[in-house]
Amino acid sequence: MTKRLFEIDPWVIKTNQLAIDDKRLQESITSIGNGYMGMRGNFEEDYSGDTHQGLYLAGVWFPDKTRVGWWKNGYPKYFGKAINSPDFLRIPIKVNGATLDLAKTDFTDFDLELDMHDGVLRRSFIATFGDTKVKFSFLRFMSVVTRELGLITVSAEVLSGQAELEFAPSINGNVHNEDSNYEEAFWQFVNQEATADHYSLTMETKPNPFGTPRFSVTEQMTNLVESDAQVERTASASPAKVSETIKTTLKAGQKVILRKQIAVVTSRDVKTADQKAAATKVLAAAAEKSLATHLAEQDAAWRKRWAQADVEISGDPAAQQGIRFNILQLFMTYYGEDSRLNVGPKGFTGEKYGGATYWDTEAFIVPMYVSVTKPQVTRQLLEYRYNQLAGAFHNARQQGLKGALYPMVTFDGIECHNEWEITFEELHRNSAVAHAIYEYTDYTGDTSYVLTKGIDVLVGIARFWADRVHFSKRHQQYMIHGVTGPNEYENNVNNNWYTNQMATWVLRYTLEILQQVSSEKATELDVSAAEQDHWRDIVTRMYYPTDEKLGIFVQNDGYLDKDLRPVSTLDPSERPLNQHWSWDKILRSPFIKQADVLQGIYFLDDQFTLAEKKRNFDFYEPMTVHESSLSACIYGIIAAEIGEEDKAVSLYSRTARLDLDNYNNDTADGLHITSMSGGWLSIVQGFAGLRHHQGQLSFKPFCPENWQQYRFQINYRDRLLAVTVSHQATTLEVLSGDDLVVAVNGKEVSLPTAKAVTIANEAH
Amino acid sequence: MTKRLFEIDPWVIKTNQLAIDDKRLQESITSIGNGYMGMRGNFEEDYSGDTHQGLYLAGVWFPDKTRVGWWKNGYPKYFGKAINSPDFLRIPIKVNGATLDLAKTDFTDFDLELDMHDGVLRRSFIATFGDTKVKFSFLRFMSVVTRELGLITVSAEVLSGQAELEFAPSINGNVHNEDSNYEEAFWQFVNQEATADHYSLTMETKPNPFGTPRFSVTEQMTNLVESDAQVERTASASPAKVSETIKTTLKAGQKVILRKQIAVVTSRDVKTADQKAAATKVLAAAAEKSLATHLAEQDAAWRKRWAQADVEISGDPAAQQGIRFNILQLFMTYYGEDSRLNVGPKGFTGEKYGGATYWDTEAFIVPMYVSVTKPQVTRQLLEYRYNQLAGAFHNARQQGLKGALYPMVTFDGIECHNEWEITFEELHRNSAVAHAIYEYTDYTGDTSYVLTKGIDVLVGIARFWADRVHFSKRHQQYMIHGVTGPNEYENNVNNNWYTNQMATWVLRYTLEILQQVSSEKATELDVSAAEQDHWRDIVTRMYYPTDEKLGIFVQNDGYLDKDLRPVSTLDPSERPLNQHWSWDKILRSPFIKQADVLQGIYFLDDQFTLAEKKRNFDFYEPMTVHESSLSACIYGIIAAEIGEEDKAVSLYSRTARLDLDNYNNDTADGLHITSMSGGWLSIVQGFAGLRHHQGQLSFKPFCPENWQQYRFQINYRDRLLAVTVSHQATTLEVLSGDDLVVAVNGKEVSLPTAKAVTIANEAH
Repeated sequence: MTKRLFEIDPWVIKTNQLAIDDKRLQESITSIGNGYMGMRGNFEEDYSGDTHQGLYLAGVWFPDKTRVGWWKNGYPKYFGKAINSPDFLRIPIKVNGATLDLAKTDFTDFDLELDMHDGVLRRSFIATFGDTKVKFSFLRFMSVVTRELGLITVSAEVLSGQAELEFAPSINGNVHNEDSNYEEAFWQFVNQEATADHYSLTMETKPNPFGTPRFSVTEQMTNLVESDAQVERTASASPAKVSETIKTTLKAGQKVILRKQIAVVTSRDVKTADQKAAATKVLAAAAEKSLATHLAEQDAAWRKRWAQADVEISGDPAAQQGIRFNILQLFMTYYGEDSRLNVGPKGFTGEKYGGATYWDTEAFIVPMYVSVTKPQVTRQLLEYRYNQLAGAFHNARQQGLKGALYPMVTFDGIECHNEWEITFEELHRNSAVAHAIYEYTDYTGDTSYVLTKGIDVLVGIARFWADRVHFSKRHQQYMIHGVTGPNEYENNVNNNWYTNQMATWVLRYTLEILQQVSSEKATELDVSAAEQDHWRDIVTRMYYPTDEKLGIFVQNDGYLDKDLRPVSTLDPSERPLNQHWSWDKILRSPFIKQADVLQGIYFLDDQFTLAEKKRNFDFYEPMTVHESSLSACIYGIIAAEIGEEDKAVSLYSRTARLDLDNYNNDTADGLHITSMSGGWLSIVQGFAGLRHHQGQLSFKPFCPENWQQYRFQINYRDRLLAVTVSHQATTLEVLSGDDLVVAVNGKEVSLPTAKAVTIANEAH
Repeated sequence: MTKRLFEIDPWVIKTNQLAIDDKRLQESITSIGNGYMGMRGNFEEDYSGDTHQGLYLAGVWFPDKTRVGWWKNGYPKYFGKAINSPDFLRIPIKVNGATLDLAKTDFTDFDLELDMHDGVLRRSFIATFGDTKVKFSFLRFMSVVTRELGLITVSAEVLSGQAELEFAPSINGNVHNEDSNYEEAFWQFVNQEATADHYSLTMETKPNPFGTPRFSVTEQMTNLVESDAQVERTASASPAKVSETIKTTLKAGQKVILRKQIAVVTSRDVKTADQKAAATKVLAAAAEKSLATHLAEQDAAWRKRWAQADVEISGDPAAQQGIRFNILQLFMTYYGEDSRLNVGPKGFTGEKYGGATYWDTEAFIVPMYVSVTKPQVTRQLLEYRYNQLAGAFHNARQQGLKGALYPMVTFDGIECHNEWEITFEELHRNSAVAHAIYEYTDYTGDTSYVLTKGIDVLVGIARFWADRVHFSKRHQQYMIHGVTGPNEYENNVNNNWYTNQMATWVLRYTLEILQQVSSEKATELDVSAAEQDHWRDIVTRMYYPTDEKLGIFVQNDGYLDKDLRPVSTLDPSERPLNQHWSWDKILRSPFIKQADVLQGIYFLDDQFTLAEKKRNFDFYEPMTVHESSLSACIYGIIAAEIGEEDKAVSLYSRTARLDLDNYNNDTADGLHITSMSGGWLSIVQGFAGLRHHQGQLSFKPFCPENWQQYRFQINYRDRLLAVTVSHQATTLEVLSGDDLVVAVNGKEVSLPTAKAVTIANEAH
């Protein structure tokens, strides 16, 4: 079922095969970005085979008018989408008048490499045109030093024969989203310039009836050419497209190098009228540096990132490659430079899902980023939600409810997903937003956010839950009907255990924090004693479906009445189910898309006994198909905790190599960016058993059988802590910062600064 | 909440007000048709205000590519839609160069009348243009004598001043469906002719990628003019439009009459090349008759229909008007002339819903038509489903299931609705198709259909249910999870009592019929003893949710856990809920859209005691909002049976005047054609208590308090039986056919032919 296009290598994603039949998959995996902009691994030159051309700018979006079969009252009016943006990548190439097109041209020695050290993508091959052979080498990266800058180089060396080479680097605004609801273009032309020394294109997003902000972008290019022969250059323009044509005729042994420098400036930072000047400045500065200097700077910047965040695995190169690929792609998507941004589910690698922000950020990104980046980065992700409180109030009002409902999908805080079972019912997302506040606060010890801003978010969410529950007179208990849990292979269920648990958790945590806020803040929040009493009543009398006989928490009412059977009874040809079964069949089946009860056990870790965790894992895991990218890591972490080490390792592999091995047969649509933290969490929280609670870090480490050892580092309250786990022992060292006391296998261990301490592992 | 645009009158739908603000509602109510074609009550002349222009041809449809937000595996590829067809109604008019347009022109003495005797629509008014006053009178009907013929006349009489009158009768192919998913046109041009003596337009439906049949239509017109002054006539044509311009200048007291004769011929009957000749023949024959003759013929044909089907109510003109309006509109939609047609939910009156055939036909139309039309008409409706068995097998396969699944919406047997909670889950429709076979067979005594064709349908449906149920090991019972019951205000529920009951009813009835088929048929059907045993096991061990304490059948699992409260607690400004509440709020509320448990009690009437019926009615009715047009009549019938006469009468009013009083605030979209049988059923099965079982007709009559009496007639096994119910007594008479023994209030009554027998009523 899996498909692996690239070779195993600890630091490089490489292949010698052009994947004609899986071009979209290959493009997804070779996507690059710098947090500001990014693109799929499309080719510079023409390519007439199947491809999905995609280039996206962070925070630049369009409200695409909702498309549904039957309108339902309360539906979002638009689906916010990352916009496929003016294409600055393209450099069509001709050799002796013939178009270079790897779907048609004869070629050998194909090589494609994404260097994970620094996010540089390289590609080369030898193309044959009659008696002429030319070696082409491409290189591209989006600068992490100057975020508005992209560098693309192509060199052509004639190996035999003679070649009249023609390059036509362009900027092209005639782009569209494949996922546009009404096949509309989202951009309109503003102006362009194509002269010998100035190539620029300015576009803006179309007016929209929803009142969401419009964006403009100016893209500008400078083409630097070094050739062994004379070069002829011509400027040309067509509607919303500027290009330069560069011709040079080379003999065997001669070479030409073209460096296409791109500057991208948007109205998010610079108003339209000033964009050209800003872009010109970026390009002028870039032209002053050699390519080698640019590469060295890029490499140095990435080296700093890796120095903090790298995870080293000995003995399993596939596992090693997986975790690095995840970290690379995450950091290429979001490294916390811009507080207005978030971590989109596909980053810059595809269009599916739309939106910039899902609950994935709080549930999966925050628990990793809090350890591998500075606290400010995580805090910024929290402030993003604080800044969107107005949208959350709006969303709750749309459902006739009080308080704040954070959206399933959004750019601006307003819900923009358009399936009723998601928009209206997948409410558990709201609690994840609250839980991330706890996660950040408890991990960092920084209470300043929760006491000043976080509490506003918490009170909003608490008020939502208090209004959303209903009281069942028959049972004399509070219930939550009509929800969709994390397991999206069930819909519109009653009393999803996870949703009910997390709702009361929010109420409890909010009540707890309310005790700590300043009296000014308390007055401002105005949560009356009666309101707090009502919350306590809900906490006390909430109904949670459980089964005494099986000793498990029940996913939701009626789940146990299903035709329960394990995934092992499925014919593999029916997987993934969502590509083979009709929706109703999936919904009524017992098969679970992703951690649901287990997600609750993960978040509320300290509320359950190991025996409870084990019984629930043993019951649910065999029925879980992990067809969400968010599933395997949660199961893996619990598996590790309950001593199911083999299971934990195989689930690690599934999460860390989900895209590299195309487990869910959908990576062609783009990478699963927000679940890429899963590999890291599987190792750190799973294998090493990291937990934190009230200033106490703890570990329960083991080393997977086929690994020799692994090593990772975490930031923790102004310290950098290194952890190395082998089969025999675990070594901890505070690399910088003060001494620290941690718990390993339940025992306290003192870690003096810069002194490695080794503790023997325990059998699980 | 209700809105009444027309006056109360026993035989006419009339008003003196042009409803500028409710034009669409007025248009829906003044729709006319003849079963072959029909149109909304649009104006002949220009009208610049809000309007929904709609003209439809029976059985002519287009597969509109499915529009959904998120594709789900198994979704229908297209939604079949009745097509807005080339517009033959229009006659733009100018007076002294100014356009007649009631949204702008000054007018007085407006009169609009739909005559229910014969389906003729008349309209008149006096328009003022400066010093000139002209009285315009329009008349139109779709002939029930020659179904391809439509007649439209306009007369203009100058009352003061002088008028240069210009009429421009046209046929215009530039029409589109308001509900088109992608704003596509469904028609393309074939050819046209516009000469002094020949105006025709031929269009065909566009090619489609789904392989469904394409249609062509030729529309042709002849304009007959009688004027007191000279007439100037000019032919003109523009793309896909032909028109004639007729000018005449009249003085005060002079008059012109234009008769626009229309012939409509489609590829359903005549191939494209021959359509013009066929249309020419229709028009030539029509021209030979005077308007008076045409009207007399139309009237005579309708008189025959009314002689069989009329229901007379004394003492309540609003109730009288309601029932006649329903019968008129039903017969204008479907009178059984064409076995390829069915009763569309909006008939010829709107576009909402698409499709030609819903379960409405079997559940609501058959029980009335079997009494008011010849048995062949009902049998034809059954054969329609038999002929679509292949589609039903396809639909089941789409869900990975065996047997036959009749569609929720279709033209050709293939499901074409595109909401998963309907398409995939509203499965109870399948049992209604089976139940109509029982209904027809038991009422008519004709077993020839069920034993030769019906049994194929029954076995297909039975096999579907046997595969669709699952066995809950925990309960050791069969269950049906993940369905939507008739109450569409809940979705994706488990063990809908109605669905479970009807599924086992199908299995039992199929087993019973299987005992009666010929041995050849049994061999052909090949239902093994083991398969029959499995069906019996399902019948024996099916789970039906019930509540012992309340003594009721439970709508579905979890229903009783809801926040149960009556409709009376709702703020009237929130009604109808589906226009005010978000979908999730509706779904988790206790409010019921339409009869669900009660629908089962209605169908399986003889399985339940009066006490059971009463308890369930008393429990569910207060929570029912009747926001489906199919609800009130079922509740009304049960209300009558359990002696809740007042309730039965108010529910009658709601069903019979649903559109005339716009109860659900959605008649602007078109009439609720398939629920128009509800008024008739409320009277006959409700007030008169008609039931049939194994050749025995029975009655339990009462007369509503504010009526003096009512009278209806039914066909029953080659007899025409008249029933008159007053407060004191019920009179029955076999008007034609053999003697009959019926039961009245449980006692046998002999009815000799042509002798009225009167029985005193009993107190309920």
